[in-house]
Amino acid sequence: MGDVVGVAVLGAGHMGADHIRRLDRVVSGARVAAVADPDAERAKEAVAGIEGVSVHTEVAAALDAPGVGAVLVASPGPAHEEALLAAFARGLPVLCEKPMVPDAAGALRVVEAEARLGRRLAQIGFMRRYDAEYRKLKALLDSGRLGRVLMLHCVHRNVSSPPGFTSAMLVDSSVAHEIDAVRWLLGQELTAVTVLRPRPSSGAPDGLLDPQFVLLETAAGALVDVEVFVNCGFGYQVRCEAVCEAGSARIGAEHTMLVTADGGAREEVPQDYLVRFADAYDREVRAWVDAVRQGRVTGPSAWDGYAASVVAEAGVRAQETGTRTTVELAPRPGLYYTPDNP
Amino acid sequence: MGDVVGVAVLGAGHMGADHIRRLDRVVSGARVAAVADPDAERAKEAVAGIEGVSVHTEVAAALDAPGVGAVLVASPGPAHEEALLAAFARGLPVLCEKPMVPDAAGALRVVEAEARLGRRLAQIGFMRRYDAEYRKLKALLDSGRLGRVLMLHCVHRNVSSPPGFTSAMLVDSSVAHEIDAVRWLLGQELTAVTVLRPRPSSGAPDGLLDPQFVLLETAAGALVDVEVFVNCGFGYQVRCEAVCEAGSARIGAEHTMLVTADGGAREEVPQDYLVRFADAYDREVRAWVDAVRQGRVTGPSAWDGYAASVVAEAGVRAQETGTRTTVELAPRPGLYYTPDNP
Amino acid sequence: MGDVVGVAVLGAGHMGADHIRRLDRVVSGARVAAVADPDAERAKEAVAGIEGVSVHTEVAAALDAPGVGAVLVASPGPAHEEALLAAFARGLPVLCEKPMVPDAAGALRVVEAEARLGRRLAQIGFMRRYDAEYRKLKALLDSGRLGRVLMLHCVHRNVSSPPGFTSAMLVDSSVAHEIDAVRWLLGQELTAVTVLRPRPSSGAPDGLLDPQFVLLETAAGALVDVEVFVNCGFGYQVRCEAVCEAGSARIGAEHTMLVTADGGAREEVPQDYLVRFADAYDREVRAWVDAVRQGRVTGPSAWDGYAASVVAEAGVRAQETGTRTTVELAPRPGLYYTPDNP
Amino acid sequence: MGDVVGVAVLGAGHMGADHIRRLDRVVSGARVAAVADPDAERAKEAVAGIEGVSVHTEVAAALDAPGVGAVLVASPGPAHEEALLAAFARGLPVLCEKPMVPDAAGALRVVEAEARLGRRLAQIGFMRRYDAEYRKLKALLDSGRLGRVLMLHCVHRNVSSPPGFTSAMLVDSSVAHEIDAVRWLLGQELTAVTVLRPRPSSGAPDGLLDPQFVLLETAAGALVDVEVFVNCGFGYQVRCEAVCEAGSARIGAEHTMLVTADGGAREEVPQDYLVRFADAYDREVRAWVDAVRQGRVTGPSAWDGYAASVVAEAGVRAQETGTRTTVELAPRPGLYYTPDNP
Repeated sequence: MGDVVGVAVLGAGHMGADHIRRLDRVVSGARVAAVADPDAERAKEAVAGIEGVSVHTEVAAALDAPGVGAVLVASPGPAHEEALLAAFARGLPVLCEKPMVPDAAGALRVVEAEARLGRRLAQIGFMRRYDAEYRKLKALLDSGRLGRVLMLHCVHRNVSSPPGFTSAMLVDSSVAHEIDAVRWLLGQELTAVTVLRPRPSSGAPDGLLDPQFVLLETAAGALVDVEVFVNCGFGYQVRCEAVCEAGSARIGAEHTMLVTADGGAREEVPQDYLVRFADAYDREVRAWVDAVRQGRVTGPSAWDGYAASVVAEAGVRAQETGTRTTVELAPRPGLYYTPDNP
Repeated sequence: MGDVVGVAVLGAGHMGADHIRRLDRVVSGARVAAVADPDAERAKEAVAGIEGVSVHTEVAAALDAPGVGAVLVASPGPAHEEALLAAFARGLPVLCEKPMVPDAAGALRVVEAEARLGRRLAQIGFMRRYDAEYRKLKALLDSGRLGRVLMLHCVHRNVSSPPGFTSAMLVDSSVAHEIDAVRWLLGQELTAVTVLRPRPSSGAPDGLLDPQFVLLETAAGALVDVEVFVNCGFGYQVRCEAVCEAGSARIGAEHTMLVTADGGAREEVPQDYLVRFADAYDREVRAWVDAVRQGRVTGPSAWDGYAASVVAEAGVRAQETGTRTTVELAPRPGLYYTPDNP
Repeated sequence: MGDVVGVAVLGAGHMGADHIRRLDRVVSGARVAAVADPDAERAKEAVAGIEGVSVHTEVAAALDAPGVGAVLVASPGPAHEEALLAAFARGLPVLCEKPMVPDAAGALRVVEAEARLGRRLAQIGFMRRYDAEYRKLKALLDSGRLGRVLMLHCVHRNVSSPPGFTSAMLVDSSVAHEIDAVRWLLGQELTAVTVLRPRPSSGAPDGLLDPQFVLLETAAGALVDVEVFVNCGFGYQVRCEAVCEAGSARIGAEHTMLVTADGGAREEVPQDYLVRFADAYDREVRAWVDAVRQGRVTGPSAWDGYAASVVAEAGVRAQETGTRTTVELAPRPGLYYTPDNP
Repeated sequence: MGDVVGVAVLGAGHMGADHIRRLDRVVSGARVAAVADPDAERAKEAVAGIEGVSVHTEVAAALDAPGVGAVLVASPGPAHEEALLAAFARGLPVLCEKPMVPDAAGALRVVEAEARLGRRLAQIGFMRRYDAEYRKLKALLDSGRLGRVLMLHCVHRNVSSPPGFTSAMLVDSSVAHEIDAVRWLLGQELTAVTVLRPRPSSGAPDGLLDPQFVLLETAAGALVDVEVFVNCGFGYQVRCEAVCEAGSARIGAEHTMLVTADGGAREEVPQDYLVRFADAYDREVRAWVDAVRQGRVTGPSAWDGYAASVVAEAGVRAQETGTRTTVELAPRPGLYYTPDNP
């Protein structure tokens, strides 16, 4: 294994600070070398007590700081395109939080830029691919033991939505995770999307279409349904059942400690994705650092980031129009043909 | 409680024979007084060893046989309308297996005939209303503790379909159970139906669209999805999850004996609806006999049978056209306004 | 199947009244012909509305009443011996609630009386043998698929104990069910019993040793542990895990409806044995009536009732002395060698 | 957080090599500075590809190597006492795998040596204290919400025992984990131990008493039972149910992916403790490294190691004699009075 990798972290908000903690305290083989945030105070606070970190307000300065060998992008989505292109320009491997780029046109520019380089530098932060249960499910589906996948039933519930969360964000921010997970689990592109809107819950903010029910169709004719409900009130739940020709497989039941009292047997439901997917984030960053130290880039690619953007855009249109909306992808550059995604 | 009720059983096939056994051996307060089947040999065989039963090939003869005080219709669906009208003409209470009448027009004639009588005589064989888990779920939803129902996720799987089972029958025979169960659970009529058809399983007979995914909309804006998969290969599964404003509730997980061996922990999945719903059939017939002995008729009504037929017909059209199809019901006669169905 | 059996029910208390309801309303093929209770008013109330029943205060009068063809003993335990001997004297088949006879000496007199008759007339009310889960477990163990049973872990919990419940009754009334169930599941006699007494729960009445932990040893060297806790406060739970050479099997997890709300996923725990074992009681009485109509007696025998009494007496001594106590059975009459109990 | 800690790893066998990998690849803030093993080739192999590690055959040389600031003892148990005393002599913090010292007399010498130093240097490798489920259970018990603990039911099963595993080792190696976990969960010393031996499984090696059933009594009158079965054949299972005055809590059910196929619903059972407790080992070492970098020692103490040895010795005597054996501890030095263990 190579030297310790110095990482420039872009963005020192909630997610950036969590990644800084992870690089400093949890994952071996990496250190935080630089941090950039328009709010310099916030950046300083996020790296307090860590030695050898330079603090910046500009992306370029952070990327050019001494000791930087890789980049972790945790800034807001609209800043991602510039950050990715800057990393590409310097030949730096980069782990970019989702969404890679919020709009499909910008995402395509990133794909084209990386394709011109002729080698992969970007890994996109679809952390579910690193969750132990999702990996078991993928291994089972890949084994062929249950035959072809016919349907996937997905559930994605949050306790409550943050201020400013819009009806479109149920699709392009929340269901975005299922969009990538389904492409990865099935190794197929998505071809159409329909969004159904039951009468909203009275627990949702006024005007928010919550819950929604999203139907995705795949290139090989599988059907995927996703309940997305971001003000369910009771917990954070992510479930997936694959119905196949020779059986079904379900993940996300989350049994842990069973407490029997007061006439019932009760298990806690996690309240937060950082609880449910804590290990997935750790594994994601560890896998990225391990690959970088070996001079490689693995994991979800810029193409995956682009495809997710295109499907999400189609999903938002489908939600607005109430009709089935087809998904049109640009031709896929050869760089992105991989064993998982032939 | 009144005297023992003599029952004329119409139809001595699989289901008729099972009901004959139930009336003779399981349920107290009733006895088999007459049986009718075009195949007299089959009828004789079904009542072998039971004393005091007359065997007929004609419905009318069975209904007029001595000792008959009630009718159980287990003949094929196309024979039901005549049987129901004949029972009505004689003022006999009747338990009629589903479908009440296969086509909505005939079903409406039954409703109108009973409405003209001015009192209920028919109970329709939607036995899920007598299943302990469904009843728990309905009690919970009725309690209001979880708020309004937003979505229902249903699964209906069979090991394999019998010979002659058609793509339409996945909707009008299999999903017919969910159609009634949903109307009963929510106390709402259904207003539209859409049928999605993923690429069929290679385990299904050639040409059969299996599985299908049926979307039902209710008068109050709830969304219901039903996976129906009649050649799933592994078991008989009926599940229902109600997603409400303040929580969700799920039935149909069917845990029984857990066997840990060979590296896994395994629970058997029932292979047959007679196993899963054995108690529901017993409770259904017991409730019917108890009511009849008290001169009452309760349970699913002819209106419920009619509404199920209309929705099923709309579902088959939706399946054929691939589009959302609205459901149009005739005006409901006053006879059928009940506490459950106001 | 033969005629309807007229049953004399001895005892019209809680359990007797429930059996009267069962014979009248639930189980076909039988009717209540006579009832006896020292409290004639209670007896009259229990059979109110049932036609053709004679009411008595004396056992003999009830047994000799017209139409009586079988006896169901639901009087207090100390009255059982006389009732059984009276039934034997008249050649009447009898279903006797547990305990067959409270003391082992009396139980042995019943065994000897039946052995002298040379044919079985008594079935003892160990209803767990008719519970669907227990039957599945027995079928699995009998299949040999998991090899020899090494250990059984049992749990027996009640919400609270009735007034007057003594420390001895945890063993000779509550664990009595496990004593019979273990003998039946394993087809082996019990050879020794030890009772451990953790510090009592503050939720138990003053002076009651609750919970207790009972260890049973079997003739073939299996070890059985039973937690008995009759003031657990939260529900009625009966569980059993068989640990075998090639795997384990567990019953009693009781999953039904799962409600997710308020940060947790919760399943109700039954509060009462009549809920948990309602079907077992129905099956028990149905099996008895079916056998009686065919002139046979099956199910748990007087020998099973005797053996349970001997083990329970040893258990109470073990509890009092704090030491391992061996179990000594009288020689088993040939009448009681059966396929289950060779 | 302080500098990176250089660790001397003593022992390069299975467990030592795993810890070397963990310190190098998984846990941040530490590095392997030296390794010692009598077999120099094995030591070299375990650190292949890691820079800056010196390899030794003697403990003293490794502890005195440049850059060593802490010690991890993963050598065989009989070598632990010398290693601990050598670390104490140099003032080095030390993480010592269980058993701390195989015999209670040696364990007491370690306690006395550390007590003379007047400050804690040793953390003992009882990694279950770092398992997420055990921590949840302890938090619940400490909260007092369920009242006092009355009983603990524990299960500890392995697929098969390694060559040379003796009947005594079921107690002093396997149940040793439960002995510590129970002391920690309840915050009480153990006062007596009894070992029951059902007839051994035919799947166990000749002469091995497997399974065994161990009963532990605590200072406050709680009763603990442990099934230990090291040749169960089907998986690695560690379960614990705490039965309390106001409810029960159970961990170790290990639900993950549920696969329904071939007539059953099946979940895999882990085959190996490194799978079940992988995260616990990571958390244990991370907690140790974090504390060491802050100049502190936390976690299970030498007293915990000593107490476990005393109970295990009593357990082996109890197994041999077949009788209840009391546990006698030396007076506890003041150094070891902690909030968890007052």
